[in-house]
Amino acid sequence: MRAEILATGDEILTGALVDSNSAFLAEQLELLGLEVARHHTVGDSLEEIVDVLTEMGRRADLAVVTGGLGPTTDDLTARAAAEAAGVSLVLDKEALADIERFFAERKREMTPSNRKQAMIPEGARVLRNKVGTAPGFALKIGRCWACFMPGVPGEMRTMFRDRVLAHIRETFGRDLHPAVVRTVTTFGLPESEVGERVAAVESLFKGVRLGLRARFPEIQVKLYGRLGRQQEEDDLDGAVAWVCSRLGHNLVSDQGLSLPEAVGRLLRQKGATVAVAESCTGGLIAHLLTNVAGSSDYLLGAVVAYANQVKTGVLKVDPDVIAARGAVSRQVVEQMAIGVRSLTGADYGVATSGIAGPTGGSPEKPVGTVCIGLASARGVVSRRYRLFFGSRQAHKTIFAAVALNRLRLSLTGKGD
Amino acid sequence: MRAEILATGDEILTGALVDSNSAFLAEQLELLGLEVARHHTVGDSLEEIVDVLTEMGRRADLAVVTGGLGPTTDDLTARAAAEAAGVSLVLDKEALADIERFFAERKREMTPSNRKQAMIPEGARVLRNKVGTAPGFALKIGRCWACFMPGVPGEMRTMFRDRVLAHIRETFGRDLHPAVVRTVTTFGLPESEVGERVAAVESLFKGVRLGLRARFPEIQVKLYGRLGRQQEEDDLDGAVAWVCSRLGHNLVSDQGLSLPEAVGRLLRQKGATVAVAESCTGGLIAHLLTNVAGSSDYLLGAVVAYANQVKTGVLKVDPDVIAARGAVSRQVVEQMAIGVRSLTGADYGVATSGIAGPTGGSPEKPVGTVCIGLASARGVVSRRYRLFFGSRQAHKTIFAAVALNRLRLSLTGKGD
Repeated sequence: MRAEILATGDEILTGALVDSNSAFLAEQLELLGLEVARHHTVGDSLEEIVDVLTEMGRRADLAVVTGGLGPTTDDLTARAAAEAAGVSLVLDKEALADIERFFAERKREMTPSNRKQAMIPEGARVLRNKVGTAPGFALKIGRCWACFMPGVPGEMRTMFRDRVLAHIRETFGRDLHPAVVRTVTTFGLPESEVGERVAAVESLFKGVRLGLRARFPEIQVKLYGRLGRQQEEDDLDGAVAWVCSRLGHNLVSDQGLSLPEAVGRLLRQKGATVAVAESCTGGLIAHLLTNVAGSSDYLLGAVVAYANQVKTGVLKVDPDVIAARGAVSRQVVEQMAIGVRSLTGADYGVATSGIAGPTGGSPEKPVGTVCIGLASARGVVSRRYRLFFGSRQAHKTIFAAVALNRLRLSLTGKGD
Repeated sequence: MRAEILATGDEILTGALVDSNSAFLAEQLELLGLEVARHHTVGDSLEEIVDVLTEMGRRADLAVVTGGLGPTTDDLTARAAAEAAGVSLVLDKEALADIERFFAERKREMTPSNRKQAMIPEGARVLRNKVGTAPGFALKIGRCWACFMPGVPGEMRTMFRDRVLAHIRETFGRDLHPAVVRTVTTFGLPESEVGERVAAVESLFKGVRLGLRARFPEIQVKLYGRLGRQQEEDDLDGAVAWVCSRLGHNLVSDQGLSLPEAVGRLLRQKGATVAVAESCTGGLIAHLLTNVAGSSDYLLGAVVAYANQVKTGVLKVDPDVIAARGAVSRQVVEQMAIGVRSLTGADYGVATSGIAGPTGGSPEKPVGTVCIGLASARGVVSRRYRLFFGSRQAHKTIFAAVALNRLRLSLTGKGD
C-alpha cells in the first residue's frame, strides 16, 4: 500500500505560503497505517499537474491532493484530473445543488465561475463540502485512487474527516492497520538524550512504535500501537508508564499537554492562583497561559515591567538593589515575584529578568542569561540560567518555558 | 531554466515537522529569476531518493536538495546522489579537515560516523559548512546541477547564502534574471479587496509583477522588478507609491514593516512612550511589541488585568462601572487605558477588553466582541468591534492587531 500527497498552487510553490496541509495529511494517513512514500508540490500549471497525477497513477495506490478547486481560472485541478484519467468533465447535479445552497444560505450572489466548481471528472465520486463552495472528488487514475480536496486548511480538514476517511476505509479497509497514538510531553532534555532514554520501549513492548517530535521548546514522545488489538492497547498503557518513568522530573504530561496546559491543570487541581512579573519575556508567559481556554480560573494577571520605573513603581522593587545588582539578578526577580504576588493577591508569583538580545549582553551577563523568581506562601526562591539559543524570539520562548517549568515543579512538589 | 526542490527526511514525510526549508528556497530561487516547477519530499529511503534524483536529472536544470547529510545510518543522501550520478563516494580531505576543525574548536570528540560525512560523490564540488558538521556538495546528475545542503534550517540558510548562491551564479549566470522585491504592508482590508485595489499596478508599470501574501492578520503586497535595469527599478519606486496611494489609511508600511514594527518606529520618531493594559489579549500586545529589538526605548510596560480585582486594584477601574457596564465595555477600557498611563507615566495608554472564546459570549456581547481604549495627553477614546474569526488564538491575534492599529493611526494623526 503506497500513498502519495500532492499540494497544488502557486502560493505554495513560490514559498508565499508554507504548506501545512501535507503535514496534516501525512499524520492522518500514518494513523490509518498507510505508508506515505512521497509528497509533491506543483503550481497552477495544467501540464505539471497532469504529469504528476499520471506518475502517481502508475506508482501509488492512494493519492491525496489539495488545492486548485476554486472558482477562478487559476484553479485547474479538476481539468487536470480528468485529463490524467482520460475522461471528460461533467456537471454534477448534487455538487451544483450544494453550491447553490451555500450561496442561498449566506444570501450571497452565485457567479457563473462558482458553477464551474460543480464540473467533476466523469466517473468520479463527489466528496461533499459542508463548509465551503468547492466540492472534492475521488477518481481512479491508473492503478491509483486519487482524492481531491480544497486547499483552504479548514475546508480540507473537515472534508478529510467527514468524507475522505470513509472513502479510504471503504476502498482499502482490509489493507489498513489503523494506529492509536499516545503523546508524552517532556521539557529540559536535548532531543538526543530523550531518544536514548526511551529507545528501548520498542523492544520492551512488542508492537509499540516510537517517534520523537521536537515542538520547541518541548519534545513530544509519540507511541503508536495498532487499534482494536487488546493486547497491543494494553502494551501501549505499559509503554506510556515506562516512558514516563524514564523521564523523571523532565516529564511534563503523560497526556500530551503543553507546559502552559499542564501548569494550568495543576493550578486548577490545587485551587491556586498565579500572577506573573515579566521583564525579558515581555508578556509571553501571560500570553501562553491565556492561550489556554479557562485560564481566567487561575491566572489573575501579569505586570510586564520592561522599564525599571515599572519594576520599582508598580512591583516595589528596591531601586538600590537594581543599582547594586543590575536588573538581571536573582535579587531583583525575587522582589518582582514577591511584588506581583502581593499586588494581585495570587498564591504564586513568577518573575523573569534576562537578556533576550540581540544587544544588551556583557561578559558577565551575556545574551541568553535569565533569572527566574518564584514566590509563594513558602517564601521566595530564584535561579540564574545561561541558555544561548541564537535569536531574541527563541530566547523569549525558552525563558518563558523555564519559568513555567519552575512553577510546574513547585506545584508537583519537585521544585525548590 | 527549470528548477526543482527536494526535501528529504522521515520527519518531514510523516508530518512530524512542517517543511519550512522548501518555502525559503522557493523564495530565494524566485528572486534569482529561476522558475521553480516542483517540490518533492521523500523519507530516509535510498531507493526513493535515487528515484527522484534520477527523475530530476532528466527534467530539471537545477535541483536544490536538503537533508540526509548527517552522521547517522538514516542519512543516505550522499549515497543516493552518487548512485543517481553513477559515481562512487570518495573521502574529501578538505571536508574532513573542516569537520575535524569543528570538533576541535568545540573541544568535543569526533566519532567515526562524523568521518562518514566527508564521503562525497566523486566529481562533486564541496560546499563548505561554516556552522555545522555536514558539508554540502554540488553534483551534475543527468542534465541537472543538484546542490545538496543539510536539513537544519540555520545551516541550510547559511550554506545557501554563502556557497550555493555563488555556485548558481557561476553556473547559470547569463540565464538568470535576478529580481528586486518591495513589500508593502496593509491591515484591515480582506485579501480580495486588497487585490482589487492594486490589480492595475502590472498594467500601469510595465515590468512590475504583483504578488499578495496573507500573513494573518496583515496582508503583504509584493512588487517584483528585475534587478539592474534602471528603468524597471524606477518603475518599481513608482509602483510602490501608487500601491500605497490605493491603500489609504490601511497602509501600514511601504517598507514591509509589521504592525508592531511600524508602531515602534512611529513612537521612536516622536520620542513617545507607551504602556498597555490587556484583558482579553492576555499579554499578546506586549509580547508583539517586545519581539522588536530595541522596544525598551518606547515600551514602558504592561498590565495584564485578567481578573477584575487587577482591573480595579492595579488599574483603578471603578468597580461600579464594571458592575453596571460589564468588564467588556467602552467605559472600562477607557478607565484601563487612563489607569495604565498614569500608573507608568507613559505618553500613550492602550487597553483591550473582549471575549476571545470559546465560551463567555452572550447574545449582546458574542465571542469576537472587543473594546479598545486609547489614552493620551489629548484625552481618552474608545471603540467597540465585532470580529468573528473562529478560534481563541485568532481572536487574540486580531484584537491585538486592531489595538496596535488604533495606536498607529493616532500616531500618524489619522485616528480619533
